[in-house]
Amino acid sequence: MLVKGKHYRTVWWERGSVKLIEQNALPFEFKIATCRGFRQTARAIGNMTVRGAPAIGAAAGFAMAQAMLAGKAKEGTGLIKATRPTAADLFHAVDRVAAADDALEEAQLIADENVRACERIGEIGEKLCEARVLTHCNAGWLACVDWGTALAPVYARHRKGKRVFVYADETRPRSQGARLTAWELQNEGVPHAIIADNAAAYFMQRGEIDCVFVGADRIAANGDFANKIGTLEKAICAKEFGIPFYVCAPQSTIDAKCRDGKAIRIEERDEDEVLFQTGLCDDGRIGRVRVCAPLSHAKNPAFDVTPAKLVTAYVTERGVLRRGNLIRAAHK
Amino acid sequence: MLVKGKHYRTVWWERGSVKLIEQNALPFEFKIATCRGFRQTARAIGNMTVRGAPAIGAAAGFAMAQAMLAGKAKEGTGLIKATRPTAADLFHAVDRVAAADDALEEAQLIADENVRACERIGEIGEKLCEARVLTHCNAGWLACVDWGTALAPVYARHRKGKRVFVYADETRPRSQGARLTAWELQNEGVPHAIIADNAAAYFMQRGEIDCVFVGADRIAANGDFANKIGTLEKAICAKEFGIPFYVCAPQSTIDAKCRDGKAIRIEERDEDEVLFQTGLCDDGRIGRVRVCAPLSHAKNPAFDVTPAKLVTAYVTERGVLRRGNLIRAAHK
Repeated sequence: MLVKGKHYRTVWWERGSVKLIEQNALPFEFKIATCRGFRQTARAIGNMTVRGAPAIGAAAGFAMAQAMLAGKAKEGTGLIKATRPTAADLFHAVDRVAAADDALEEAQLIADENVRACERIGEIGEKLCEARVLTHCNAGWLACVDWGTALAPVYARHRKGKRVFVYADETRPRSQGARLTAWELQNEGVPHAIIADNAAAYFMQRGEIDCVFVGADRIAANGDFANKIGTLEKAICAKEFGIPFYVCAPQSTIDAKCRDGKAIRIEERDEDEVLFQTGLCDDGRIGRVRVCAPLSHAKNPAFDVTPAKLVTAYVTERGVLRRGNLIRAAHK
Repeated sequence: MLVKGKHYRTVWWERGSVKLIEQNALPFEFKIATCRGFRQTARAIGNMTVRGAPAIGAAAGFAMAQAMLAGKAKEGTGLIKATRPTAADLFHAVDRVAAADDALEEAQLIADENVRACERIGEIGEKLCEARVLTHCNAGWLACVDWGTALAPVYARHRKGKRVFVYADETRPRSQGARLTAWELQNEGVPHAIIADNAAAYFMQRGEIDCVFVGADRIAANGDFANKIGTLEKAICAKEFGIPFYVCAPQSTIDAKCRDGKAIRIEERDEDEVLFQTGLCDDGRIGRVRVCAPLSHAKNPAFDVTPAKLVTAYVTERGVLRRGNLIRAAHK
């Protein structure tokens, strides 16, 4: 997608180096990290220079190619897999590249496949996308290699010249909506407004939201899915107001071995994410302020599980799926 | 209620001066403002040193008493009424004091009446209050003179020695839950946790919330009510999970002339409340940081309207009301 008018992917290969958009610096600064060897790339994955399962997978594939080209397959495998030990896409990419005849070609293929899957999600989802869209967190191209998942239909619609307006939930505590989604939309020229997470139902009630598009971290066999904390609230509110609620994800997100949402464990993260907010100070530095009463504590679940009954449809690169045919479709 | 073990009201009279807890400085600093004349008190009302309809009403009553004692009834009336031109409690208090034989006695009575009403809301609501409570924004004693509305039942339960735990919604954009509600609970020794607004449904789904208590800015004749943005989302989620949802307010909040929620106009506030967050910097100063993508804009509705069908009951100083008998009860 576009950054200041120029096309970028989140991760790419350039003369032996892995290039990554420095996502920790966004939206206040746009920087490219250059990782000259697999150890550097692994470090960048570990410190969240790159984020989002597909983007992490692509970066891991390229990192593994760097390791193979350096004749360090074994060391690379261990090091890269240790960076984000719960990321399924990362493990999958490392194993694919390690087993390939041409490591770099395979790594490039992984990245290209993800771009193509997201582009298809965009083409398919565009037919369901109406003019006024609510989205939660960031399921845009920054989380993938290009296009994104939940935002791919929005971009497809916008590029067709159709009217589209996005309400971007701030998405506390880490504010990925206010930071990354808004930044992406701005760079693509898509009209949008950031709203406090509290305001989504207000705009639904007024009839100002036509549809909700979100991503997913993991979709269980029965259609329950885990996504950023707050997704459940938006799904419940969408149902209350009769607004269609779509989950966009590549097929690889469907976990046939996970029976239902109860089997998904939710990570509780550091309370400081709630107690403090980081941002741009008036003097141009990045700083943080305590936004809660000192001495009080916070609870900070990072994800929630939305039951399948609240989902209108799932949009994957193979088509629009209903919860009855999720698994069949995934294993065709 | 208690601050560091000592009892305070938000506003009181002391040898000709009006004393106010400096709410702009909370929760990072606890200060008392001393207003030596009606002009100073009016200024304090205008700059939100005092906030919450009942607290504003009490402060306005005392301000008017200062004006009357200074022989400036006419100037006082105009000046005080101009500070917060949409506050019904303020107008009512000024008129009551202006018409009284003993201005100071009447102003004191207004404050004491509010304390007694809130204490009754606490006694009555306590019977409905269970161990694990969700609340939104700040409807505690800082918004009133003492006790509060939504938090009065919590305090009553706690003082009875019963187990109680409060989930305090952060309540973006102005974070009154994370700042004021948490600060109040801390000072009263009530166990609590701040949560991101996104996390309420997560805890409901897990069965960790037994009941929801919120305040109200205005209750229409049919039971629809306006309150801080996000109240509607919590009400919808409470219904989804079968959790009782209580609205606590003095009878004066019921507006018999307002037919239903459609008649309530919602204020859209400055987008900077969403785009920036104010808080305590590491160096001890109060500062602000930009928390959203620069150049993106925000929409910032300050309140929303929750339909009566989502309310389990209304708790006022006259008892537990259902939407069918709201008006009858209000005019008994």
